[in-house]
Amino acid sequence: MAIAQARAAPVDKQAAEAAIAELAAAFGNRLVTSLAVRQQHGNTTTWLPNEPPDGVVFAQNTGDVQTVVRICAKHHVPIIPFGTGTSLEGHVNAPFGGVSIDFKDMNRIVAVHAEDLDCVIEPGVTRKQLNEHLRDQGLFFPIDPGADASLGGMAATRASGTNAVRYGTMKDNVIALKAVMANGEVMTTARRARKSSAGYDLTRLMVGSEGTLGIITELTLKLHGIPEAIASAVCPFPSVEAACNATIMAIQTGIPVASIELLDELQVKASNAYAKLGLKEVPTLFLEFHGTESSVAEQARRFADIAADVGGGPFDWATKPEDRTRLWQARHDAYWAVIQLRPGAKGFATDVCVPISRLAECVGETKRDIESMGLIAPIVGHVGDGNFHVSVLIDMDDAAECAAARRFVERLAERALAMDGTCTGEHGVGQGKMKYLPAEHGEPAIAAMRAIKTALDPANIMNPGKIFAMNP
Amino acid sequence: MAIAQARAAPVDKQAAEAAIAELAAAFGNRLVTSLAVRQQHGNTTTWLPNEPPDGVVFAQNTGDVQTVVRICAKHHVPIIPFGTGTSLEGHVNAPFGGVSIDFKDMNRIVAVHAEDLDCVIEPGVTRKQLNEHLRDQGLFFPIDPGADASLGGMAATRASGTNAVRYGTMKDNVIALKAVMANGEVMTTARRARKSSAGYDLTRLMVGSEGTLGIITELTLKLHGIPEAIASAVCPFPSVEAACNATIMAIQTGIPVASIELLDELQVKASNAYAKLGLKEVPTLFLEFHGTESSVAEQARRFADIAADVGGGPFDWATKPEDRTRLWQARHDAYWAVIQLRPGAKGFATDVCVPISRLAECVGETKRDIESMGLIAPIVGHVGDGNFHVSVLIDMDDAAECAAARRFVERLAERALAMDGTCTGEHGVGQGKMKYLPAEHGEPAIAAMRAIKTALDPANIMNPGKIFAMNP
Repeated sequence: MAIAQARAAPVDKQAAEAAIAELAAAFGNRLVTSLAVRQQHGNTTTWLPNEPPDGVVFAQNTGDVQTVVRICAKHHVPIIPFGTGTSLEGHVNAPFGGVSIDFKDMNRIVAVHAEDLDCVIEPGVTRKQLNEHLRDQGLFFPIDPGADASLGGMAATRASGTNAVRYGTMKDNVIALKAVMANGEVMTTARRARKSSAGYDLTRLMVGSEGTLGIITELTLKLHGIPEAIASAVCPFPSVEAACNATIMAIQTGIPVASIELLDELQVKASNAYAKLGLKEVPTLFLEFHGTESSVAEQARRFADIAADVGGGPFDWATKPEDRTRLWQARHDAYWAVIQLRPGAKGFATDVCVPISRLAECVGETKRDIESMGLIAPIVGHVGDGNFHVSVLIDMDDAAECAAARRFVERLAERALAMDGTCTGEHGVGQGKMKYLPAEHGEPAIAAMRAIKTALDPANIMNPGKIFAMNP
Repeated sequence: MAIAQARAAPVDKQAAEAAIAELAAAFGNRLVTSLAVRQQHGNTTTWLPNEPPDGVVFAQNTGDVQTVVRICAKHHVPIIPFGTGTSLEGHVNAPFGGVSIDFKDMNRIVAVHAEDLDCVIEPGVTRKQLNEHLRDQGLFFPIDPGADASLGGMAATRASGTNAVRYGTMKDNVIALKAVMANGEVMTTARRARKSSAGYDLTRLMVGSEGTLGIITELTLKLHGIPEAIASAVCPFPSVEAACNATIMAIQTGIPVASIELLDELQVKASNAYAKLGLKEVPTLFLEFHGTESSVAEQARRFADIAADVGGGPFDWATKPEDRTRLWQARHDAYWAVIQLRPGAKGFATDVCVPISRLAECVGETKRDIESMGLIAPIVGHVGDGNFHVSVLIDMDDAAECAAARRFVERLAERALAMDGTCTGEHGVGQGKMKYLPAEHGEPAIAAMRAIKTALDPANIMNPGKIFAMNP
């Protein structure tokens, strides 16, 4: 593979072996060192090269995580937390070797406080598992990045997804968390109160820190009541610009849409083929409204008027639950649908986010770039936030295609930054977006991040080689 | 005064004098050292002793702040940011001397991006000033702590107030900020995109850090469209427990109230006397609903049903804008109304926040404590968040009364912590709540805060003596 070749990693093999031996004594067959399992715990879903850890520990509780951290700290060996491996920017890779901690067995729902609209969970709980557990109580957790990711991973990468325009991102929905720090101690960031002004916001510092400051072992999450009424709709537009402009107007006029998702014509074509949707193959918005029966109807009516104003429509309801499910399943399967456009190809997925006033322009320029480069690259987006994704379909064995995809992604990130946006709205930095961070935040911010990292993890053993370089 | 005596502060007088001399050369008459002005810049609104700085610089731009920080850093002299001085926990005091930076002249509204629902402002802009500026564009900034505080101070203390139940706190409404760090450099925390997963959340780290990590010199804030319809209402209840239970049910059933404020019978009495409200002197909820005409009516109807279920009511609309204004003015004047209950007394104000399921119990126990201690102490609260305030009216010259008030506040903080709550929902830690922080967060969290502080401000010159002790 042209991109996915192994990097030369300055791993201290002796230290890793010593740590693995101690971990084997502590965890028995819950430490796995087979190549297949190690490679599974490197990157699976991205264009980045697979960099497997030296071993994988399947943790069962916070004490296990403390044990791993203490052993690794003693030998100066990296620790990489692993949820479901669905991250897109190389977060779970082990560029310096080390030990991956797999959280699949830490998937207990510790408590649901229905009366407080919160729950306490272990980090291996996935969002679908949590929502299945909550359904009977009339509650749900709204953050939905598409993949059935672990909530620990979602917190670590500050994930968001289709409902963020209404319910916020992980940053807005984590009330408190516990994390094992580099010294092996367990830090609790906050109490269960809905708000607090008691000191530094360690919760928000840990959310999005991608395992580089500590390892999340428990989360207290905000829950929401399942809305009395949910309505979905589909609305075609003459251009992506028109669809973006309708989105901008909906947000500006304060329609509290729960989701507003753009699929460009290529994505609609792909989803039609994959999910038999039978939609007109033009830029299309998928919408969801939450509220009471009457407020949902009112929101939808208002949106339909806006869509008509920019030449969009007809605005089609999907009132039957099965239609709704099919629609949103198609949205969630967008990536898999895309892959079918070019069998054998892999999707080089990226995302950016810009102020919503620049969205139409940013999407428009990006589409022109895709065309002029001759790429196959559908666009889907959580456009209510100004956030959109592009999946460039490439043959990973073709060096020229890989290089073109890289150039395209680079130009996209630079375009977003030039529009006062961010190089990643929700995928995180990991390895893939590291190089854009200084341009996005400036040196003083990167210096502050580096100082915080050094303060909390002086030996740089917590998921090193992610977000920013320690020795630039 | 029994409480308000000056503390012995280990100030290096010579260093302070050297810094003041340099500042005088740099700022001329924008450096003020008169005792009156210095005392104004110590604490004014709290029970804590006034600890004036050595001088006050009236900054006009970020460059001025950098100059102050660089001069103070050179002489190891503390720097204390000052907005409007309305904080309640001693945030603006100078226990180790130093230089106060007054932001009243840094009150420019740099940009309003109506289409993106955001604005860029200097930290001295007050919330009323901003909202007056925005009104013509149909926009508003929702965070309202009562006082016409500076937005820089509100960000620094993670303020919230009456609308937080719907719109969140400062943590949720600051998109990005600029801050002068201890090394004199200007750090920008984020771009204007609505969401980002690009690295550590430095915005949220700075919000609530009370000037101890850096000095905010610019804020990018989220704005909201002025709702099409706003309705206010008043609803009496047979007990504070009943009022709390109605609140809990409203939140649990997802009524998107914009404000839900409890006044206990003593507060209603005080506000009746002060603002001629003519309300029945029983525990009362003030409510505000935002939305479309029909959604506001629906929300109000649902709340009225809930109130009736717990024996509350009648639910009275205040539909005329002048009635609404009078009502909310009375709510905002609650503190001044309270003072009139006992002329000459001062209010020892405190706040806590608990999970909403514990709110009725926490308020009930607190009222019994007030009674058994023979205190005059009305309760008002942003009860939708589980947050409430108590103002203990005391004669500051009476040592026994002061001691009793302290004991009461201590017990209240401990009660909130025992209920998985926080010792401060929105006032911040400052000096007044420092002693509760280890119990609230545990040693590992305090150690992390201290490590972050040392990493970003190694000489401890940024508002020292606040939030936590550096040498416990």
